[in-house]
Amino acid sequence: MKLVQFYAFGRHMFGSLEGEEIHVHDGNPFEGPIEPTGKRLSLDVAHLLPPCRPSKIICVGSNYRAHCVEMGRPVPDVPKLFLKPPSALIASGDAIRAPADVGRIDFEGELAVVIGRRMKRVAAADALEYVLGYTVLNDVTARAIQTADVQFTRAKGFDTFCPLGPAIETALAGSPDALRLVTRVNGVVKQDGHTSDMVFSVPTLLAFISAHMTLEPGDVIATGTPQGVGALLPGDTVSIDIEGVGTLENPVVAA
Amino acid sequence: MKLVQFYAFGRHMFGSLEGEEIHVHDGNPFEGPIEPTGKRLSLDVAHLLPPCRPSKIICVGSNYRAHCVEMGRPVPDVPKLFLKPPSALIASGDAIRAPADVGRIDFEGELAVVIGRRMKRVAAADALEYVLGYTVLNDVTARAIQTADVQFTRAKGFDTFCPLGPAIETALAGSPDALRLVTRVNGVVKQDGHTSDMVFSVPTLLAFISAHMTLEPGDVIATGTPQGVGALLPGDTVSIDIEGVGTLENPVVAA
Repeated sequence: MKLVQFYAFGRHMFGSLEGEEIHVHDGNPFEGPIEPTGKRLSLDVAHLLPPCRPSKIICVGSNYRAHCVEMGRPVPDVPKLFLKPPSALIASGDAIRAPADVGRIDFEGELAVVIGRRMKRVAAADALEYVLGYTVLNDVTARAIQTADVQFTRAKGFDTFCPLGPAIETALAGSPDALRLVTRVNGVVKQDGHTSDMVFSVPTLLAFISAHMTLEPGDVIATGTPQGVGALLPGDTVSIDIEGVGTLENPVVAA
Repeated sequence: MKLVQFYAFGRHMFGSLEGEEIHVHDGNPFEGPIEPTGKRLSLDVAHLLPPCRPSKIICVGSNYRAHCVEMGRPVPDVPKLFLKPPSALIASGDAIRAPADVGRIDFEGELAVVIGRRMKRVAAADALEYVLGYTVLNDVTARAIQTADVQFTRAKGFDTFCPLGPAIETALAGSPDALRLVTRVNGVVKQDGHTSDMVFSVPTLLAFISAHMTLEPGDVIATGTPQGVGALLPGDTVSIDIEGVGTLENPVVAA
């Protein structure tokens, strides 16, 4: 199922995306089972929301070898974790707002893992059982602030700097560690990577992170970006396509 | 009012702390007004919870000059922001669990600001109007991981590494920038600082942070720690006392 969260007729609801239609479900998949209602809505009358409401968004830095090379950073021995604030979330279709006076802002296309049930100190061999599904995340970054601050929080924490969606693929065909990821700006390919190039695989990351902090339903793990990161300007449209997962597309505007 | 959140009789509730008694209130202060019910409970039959459920916990590093000196870091030109995950929160009285094999863990006593209403690009002159109140936070840190990782997330993000409370003082007498902060381990004074030594004052921090990311009701800003940070061992009890705000006390146990 391609699980979406959306706003229509004054309510937040969940459903499954089928082409240009949403099949409306009752319930909240992060609190209990959901059931189809039989109702259908056109995407035109629903406003897509980020597909979950994470209590935390945990990102992994330098997790693709070729990206480490392009950034001049060593390939890490242990996963490098940082957090993005939930206030930065926007849905597919919403505008990324480029703040004035922060210099260049960059896209970073990433595979995101969405947690389905509480997870604490789980071994890698069992980790995928705790996953609800996969979606696409753009780890938008104000590059000059990232360098100046050392800590990534401010550079990556502006409102709208965390596009997520459009949907959570809950029945991925195959492994999350064997997916092609393509980022385009105005239709031009900028990143063409593959999750098999990750330094730390999805199960390894989940085991590592859950050994440090309890993961809650709806929490998001952003698994790092491949090589080819680059700048976004107001007027651009950035789209990130992950094989079998979906396409996250956002326009960029001046804040 | 000393606003507390607690668990009793199978429910989460809010109330005001009066000595060893809680005056029970109806409602949730982060969603709307609360009203006294007239009921009273002894602290003995209530389990205190962290006094709010932040969507994010924003911390400010190196915000006391003497702490910069003891850590061998420069005094910053702009506030250095990082995040702690909400999964790290515990209440006053709960145990800090020291993980095995991470080396030394340190206390860091801090004044915490709790946001009362949504705040986005607010000037310093108006910032305190958005504050619900003040409480005490212990920014527990695994020092060796902090140094090794560069990013602070993992070192400061373990479960139980964010004691908060016991209560939110909603009617602070005087300025948040003129408070004495004393941290004791097993009764011995380790930090004896004063918020007037902050590099960036509370209104300045709120203006700076809200220019970057929207603050939501219940969000917490940890304003940095004064000099005197040091180690905690299983069996220790750490207490942080902020003048007019309250005393946060937690035992330390092996995880």
